[in-house]
Amino acid sequence: MTIITAVTTHDVRFPTSLSADGSDAMNKDGDYSAAYVVIHTDDPTLSGFGFTFTIGRGNDLCTEAARQRGIPLVGLDVDVAVADLGAVYRRLNSDSQLRWLGPEKGVEHLALAAVMNAMWDLAARRANKPLWKLLTDMTPTELVDATDLKYLSDVLTRDEAIALLEELAPTRATRVAELSESGYPCYTTSAGWLGYSDEKLRRLLQEAVDQGYRHVKLKVGANVDDDYRRLGIAREVIGWDANLMIDANQVWDVPEAIEWVARLAEFEPLWIEEPTSPDDVLGHAAIRKAVAPIGVATGEHGMNRVLFKQMFQAEAIDFCQLDSARLGSVNEILAVYLMAKKFGVPVCPHAGGVGLCELVQHLSIFDYVAVSGSLDGRVTEYVDHLHEHFTAPCIVENGAYLLPTAAGYSAEMYQSTVDEYSFPSGSYWASVAPEVQAQPVIEHYLA
Amino acid sequence: MTIITAVTTHDVRFPTSLSADGSDAMNKDGDYSAAYVVIHTDDPTLSGFGFTFTIGRGNDLCTEAARQRGIPLVGLDVDVAVADLGAVYRRLNSDSQLRWLGPEKGVEHLALAAVMNAMWDLAARRANKPLWKLLTDMTPTELVDATDLKYLSDVLTRDEAIALLEELAPTRATRVAELSESGYPCYTTSAGWLGYSDEKLRRLLQEAVDQGYRHVKLKVGANVDDDYRRLGIAREVIGWDANLMIDANQVWDVPEAIEWVARLAEFEPLWIEEPTSPDDVLGHAAIRKAVAPIGVATGEHGMNRVLFKQMFQAEAIDFCQLDSARLGSVNEILAVYLMAKKFGVPVCPHAGGVGLCELVQHLSIFDYVAVSGSLDGRVTEYVDHLHEHFTAPCIVENGAYLLPTAAGYSAEMYQSTVDEYSFPSGSYWASVAPEVQAQPVIEHYLA
Repeated sequence: MTIITAVTTHDVRFPTSLSADGSDAMNKDGDYSAAYVVIHTDDPTLSGFGFTFTIGRGNDLCTEAARQRGIPLVGLDVDVAVADLGAVYRRLNSDSQLRWLGPEKGVEHLALAAVMNAMWDLAARRANKPLWKLLTDMTPTELVDATDLKYLSDVLTRDEAIALLEELAPTRATRVAELSESGYPCYTTSAGWLGYSDEKLRRLLQEAVDQGYRHVKLKVGANVDDDYRRLGIAREVIGWDANLMIDANQVWDVPEAIEWVARLAEFEPLWIEEPTSPDDVLGHAAIRKAVAPIGVATGEHGMNRVLFKQMFQAEAIDFCQLDSARLGSVNEILAVYLMAKKFGVPVCPHAGGVGLCELVQHLSIFDYVAVSGSLDGRVTEYVDHLHEHFTAPCIVENGAYLLPTAAGYSAEMYQSTVDEYSFPSGSYWASVAPEVQAQPVIEHYLA
Repeated sequence: MTIITAVTTHDVRFPTSLSADGSDAMNKDGDYSAAYVVIHTDDPTLSGFGFTFTIGRGNDLCTEAARQRGIPLVGLDVDVAVADLGAVYRRLNSDSQLRWLGPEKGVEHLALAAVMNAMWDLAARRANKPLWKLLTDMTPTELVDATDLKYLSDVLTRDEAIALLEELAPTRATRVAELSESGYPCYTTSAGWLGYSDEKLRRLLQEAVDQGYRHVKLKVGANVDDDYRRLGIAREVIGWDANLMIDANQVWDVPEAIEWVARLAEFEPLWIEEPTSPDDVLGHAAIRKAVAPIGVATGEHGMNRVLFKQMFQAEAIDFCQLDSARLGSVNEILAVYLMAKKFGVPVCPHAGGVGLCELVQHLSIFDYVAVSGSLDGRVTEYVDHLHEHFTAPCIVENGAYLLPTAAGYSAEMYQSTVDEYSFPSGSYWASVAPEVQAQPVIEHYLA
């Protein structure tokens, strides 16, 4: 018998604001961060690793919330827990006092994601399989038992969910073999951050084309004339056969979104991403009607499955960009994939940040193998930074994620990274000048 | 010149779980708590007091989030700040790193509410007026300058908002005089907690009738046969002319809500409150269609103005129950009142908890005087507990809130209360046995 002995948490922050990586119209100075969770067992060779992703300040709150969320795990028999991760999820998520702080949104839900991501990592390691393999080896009933269907029965019952998964169960192996050859297609946002000069943009776009990407994404929304010029540069470099996506990071009201996108329509973007508040289901539906045939994409701030249910019901989006560290881990993500299948909406997960690429590759593979069975309209985000901190980083070749082979959810960071970037006492943060060290706490306010 | 010198925060928790006060189908063991904020100035006679409300665990996170949110206030000139509370709100709310943790929801938004509630309290004290009077003395333009209209322009423009307020501006004094006579009508939830016995329920309902209440509310949703019996008792005691409301605290899926309410329809409830997930706009719209003429009410967990915008657009609710400590204080609440006016939906604020009654009385008075000009379908919640901890508690007589006369937002607690109930080091928590002291942290998990 192997027992969970402790859950430790770490506030890990990378000083990405110094290089404008990740800059967009809403988020100008993010320090990419992880509220990092380690589930320890009495077997020194077995731990689970997980995290949620934030952009700096407040990562301490997520870390402390994750510590509190993890308390009930201590003392559990690992094999009992991993045999019913639906029960573990419900136990953590049903704490009514913590539920009041959401429910199922904000810091508390991010913390739940961090802890349950570590539990799924632990389960996959215990089975000695990469997470995608753990999932694709589960029966339809086992998968649905792990899925949070609460509040969804008006669009998806348990029986429907099982039936959806049974459709593709007999042919899963074929699609695993196919992805082993080709990988899962991805696109790059690395070229398009708003803080980059035109020259850097042009150079990075050319690099993306040379690396085999068929999709690139640019940030927009700060200044429409700048956007017009940058999209022109993009089409010059990538041509008109490749796909160009644009991302406004929630800066517009609904009428403004419609107007702004019309101005950029001649560049034929595949989608406009996050045109307005991520909570505005009816707003996205209105924008979608107005900007067609340009698609509408959103989801990286989609707080929970109830929001996605409504996005599907209202026909508000063409692309579902769920986030692997914002939804309540695999338990809630499965529900979104199943609803997306029912409503015929492709899921193109949000990634980038720190470690999100490592997570979402498993989800996209699982989706193709077991849920959607399709690559049509599907392409998963990839951003080329901070992978060096992970013990089993994702590998992208010719614009596709290769199938991960290491056991787990690819979420483990090097201990040296944790030691260096823990805030504020890690060796990096302790070494910088006090003004810089204080930056994630108050610099923003002094600007 | 008076300067803000410090913002202090306090994790105040009351052991209400010991008496089952506040028990409902979702929340069985709440310890009513406040993340309490004091804004200090260099004038020892002038401070601002505010809070957000939680039910126990996680109040520490809200308190720390409020501390961080308050940092930019230190050093501000009080008169400059209170002259443009819209600017203060935008400054705090636009922190992009903290925004990532919501946006505008969960722990971070509760913390914003706590800090801005204290700023509005400070502004009213500076003007030596109760908050309702501060607001009703502001011009339409001043009010709209303080209102957060971001993401709302598809339903309410700035010009429309000003025009709405100008309608009633000339006649405000008449309605102030009227409320000075009659007070603002309220209803009581004190009788109806789910943890109470039938005998206690019957006794408390009779007391409510004797005290002049024309509306009472019962918790439902744990067991339909129990609900049927309890509603029968309620009608026996209050008769059929008084109004009976029921509250399910989010326990149902949409189809279940429709079925359960049908079973209770013979008792002719005025509304069913929180029938399902507070995020489910389209679900509430479906329930509303199915259960009419019973009304649908929700809002105490309504996370922000974008959610309420959609509730109005989708015709999902008959009663809007905004929460004074969950929305971003008066700045965001004004936006919801203005939209409610435009869509013709009465606002009946959520209260109870600790201190919420103290806050909402000001909002309801302001609404009648300056926004809606109507009492039709409007009744504000009142729960009779924990008022003794406030220096200027609300006063209810004959089922109506009397107009508050003390300067401020009625949010100040006695220092002795803060000293006694601060968690875990206050004199109450320090005095109880260690097992009980630990209860708010882990007792739930041990059950």
